[in-house]
Order: sequence, then structure tokens, then C-alpha cells
Amino acid sequence: MEEIVIIKDVLEANNNVADINKNIKDDRNILMVNLIGAPGTGKTTFLLKAIENLSIQCGVIEGDVTSDIDAKKMAEKNIPVVQINTGGSCHLNAGSVNRALESINFDNGILFIENVGNLICPSGFELGEDFKLAIANVTEGDDKPYKYPLLFTKAKAVILNKIDMIPYFEFDKKFFYDGIRALNPDVPIFEVSSRTGEGFEEFVKWLEEQYKKFMESK
Amino acid sequence: MEEIVIIKDVLEANNNVADINKNIKDDRNILMVNLIGAPGTGKTTFLLKAIENLSIQCGVIEGDVTSDIDAKKMAEKNIPVVQINTGGSCHLNAGSVNRALESINFDNGILFIENVGNLICPSGFELGEDFKLAIANVTEGDDKPYKYPLLFTKAKAVILNKIDMIPYFEFDKKFFYDGIRALNPDVPIFEVSSRTGEGFEEFVKWLEEQYKKFMESK
Repeated sequence: MEEIVIIKDVLEANNNVADINKNIKDDRNILMVNLIGAPGTGKTTFLLKAIENLSIQCGVIEGDVTSDIDAKKMAEKNIPVVQINTGGSCHLNAGSVNRALESINFDNGILFIENVGNLICPSGFELGEDFKLAIANVTEGDDKPYKYPLLFTKAKAVILNKIDMIPYFEFDKKFFYDGIRALNPDVPIFEVSSRTGEGFEEFVKWLEEQYKKFMESK
Repeated sequence: MEEIVIIKDVLEANNNVADINKNIKDDRNILMVNLIGAPGTGKTTFLLKAIENLSIQCGVIEGDVTSDIDAKKMAEKNIPVVQINTGGSCHLNAGSVNRALESINFDNGILFIENVGNLICPSGFELGEDFKLAIANVTEGDDKPYKYPLLFTKAKAVILNKIDMIPYFEFDKKFFYDGIRALNPDVPIFEVSSRTGEGFEEFVKWLEEQYKKFMESK
């Protein structure tokens, strides 16, 4: 029982800082998107392609246990970026995002948080984001919504990446969609290939609408 | 500071149960292998193919947040199996493996633990296993050893799965190998395709040697 109490305290403290983050990013006209997916699902390549296609300026907070491989890829494209290394923790928390918001020189646009590669714990920690974006890919198999339901339940949209690999994998698209629909009936699902650029037009249009709605609601 | 103390206590309690598990499985002539990899890296398909090729009898403890999809695949092949659902936790702990050892009807062979799909936390929790087996795959990209070093540091062997996908992905094998070698200079690395069966002969030979050594050491 004691353990559960401790976890509740940690979550409550985290949520308080998440609320602070939300105010900070609202004041700076930032739509903040928490991108969550497994290791190697293509989060960085997806972001690079999305940012290339968006007409709104973008920045990135990179979350990793260690290394700055992904942040360097962003910096190479002159995208404003801050790296958070969790040093062992399997998810970002609101405190580290708070420090990242302090140090990144970015306003008036979309700020992506590329969370640590993990389909489980990142979904349990609010960061002050406007919404969570789930990303999965064809090569991982079609059963991810059944095995990792929390992310697909909480996501405002789902990306199915590496769609160009469909011919080479046994991926039952209906089974994948049914799994998501059972958890989150109306969530939009975007099929993309970050390599070929297929499917980005529709996703970019949707995301630009989200930014417009966010700015109108202020 | 308080948080750190709590985590230490949790790990110490876990390690005590892991020691008990080690004695139990030794008494039952079981070589216990803790298989760790990302979601969708092909752990289940890899185990099915390995077990099909091994001349030693095998059992499986399946770890998932929820669902029994993987356990059913084992049962269909008449492989002794027990499912552990962590109900949210992102890794197995020694307590749940202790209960699984109680309930699985299995002795005199190799017992695989398919850990929860996660490249981070499972590496930090001892289960009483003889060794950890790391699994990564070509479609995840070549940077995994750099981003998730703990697993590759602790593993007694590394599997590179989906090797038949090399023609379709930008995967720098030298970069992947260099990353592993920097952490764990002498670890054997087996390139396999769980779909085609390529590379299993060498891995199976190595694993059967480990079982022989284990039995001789008793």
C-alpha cells in the first residue's frame, strides 16, 4: 500500500508542474504536442518530415535516456531544439520539460516533445502538452493497441508509420484499426511513410487546423 | 533524496526474491534466459523459431502489460507457458516470476522469460535468470546501443533480428556493432531472420552450449 501512496504523490507533484508548463506555453502561443512511440518506430524521421511540410514554425524538445543523436539531426535542419537526457528514467516528466521550456528560444508555433522511446510509462506522465500523439509502425506488428492500450486510449491522433513496408510484413490493418477503435472510437489515424513522404499532406492539414483552433480559443 | 532511498529499497527487495528464484530454477535443472527488447522487435516470433530448432525442451514465461496474445501463440505449439500481466508496470519483477515458476509445470530444460516490450527498465530488475539476452532488429535503426546502453552492457548475447530487411532500410551495421563493442567488447552477436530461419543454426548451437555448461557446473 505504501508504494501506491508514493506513486500517487509523484504523479500529483508532476501534474502541478505540468499545469505550470501549460500556462507558460499558452503565454508564448505554443501548441505543445507530446509524441509517444516505441524505440525505433521512426519518431525523429517523422518529425523531420512533418516540420518540412508544415507552414507553421516548429521547435523540438528531444527526450532520451542518454545521447544527443536525435537533437543533432534537428539542429542540422536549423530547427530550434533542446535535448533532455533522463539518465535512466523511461519517460519525461513535467519538471524536465519545464527546464527545457526555459532554455529553448521558441514562441508562436508548434513545439513537439519527442518523448523517450517507450510505449508504456510516457503515457502516464502529463507534461503540460495540448495533446498526445501516438506513433506506431508496420514493422512492429498489428497488435500494439491490444498490448499497450493506455497510449492509444489517450492519444488525440494516431500515426501509422512505415506504410511503404506493408508489402514485406504480415500486418493486418483491420486488426490494428479495430484495436484502436475499441479504445478510442473517433481518433483520427494517419498512415504515413516518413521515408517517401506519403500521407503527410493529410496529417499536416489536420495539425495546422489544431494550431488554428488553439489560437482562436485563446 | 527520499525518492532514491525508496528505489534502492525496491531494488533490494527485488534482488532478494531473484536469489530465491535462482535457487528454485537451479533445483529444477532449468537454464533461465531473460529476453529483453523493444515492442514489436519480434521477441515472440524469435522464441518460436528458436524453440523449433533447439534439441532441448523449452518453456516460456510471457510478460505483458496486458493481453495474452503471445502466450496463446506458445500454447498453440504445445510449449509450456505462463502469462504474467503487469497491469501497467513497464517491466517484470522477481516476485511475479516467482509465482510463474510455482505455476509452470516445467523442469530440465531452457525456460525463456519474454520480458515486457521495453528497452529501458527491464534491464534494471534481476529476475533470478542465468543471463539476459538482448534483441534488436534492423527496422528499428542502428542507433539502439547508443540510446539504450544498459541492456547492451548487461547482455550475455545480442540478437539482431529481421536481417532479411537489410535491403529495405538504411542500417549501418558497423555503427550498430561499434556501439555494442564499446559497451560489451566480447559479447556474441547473432544475425537472424525469425521469418526465414536464417542464422538460427549458430544461435541454437551457442545456446545448447550454455545449457551444457550450466548442467556441468551444478
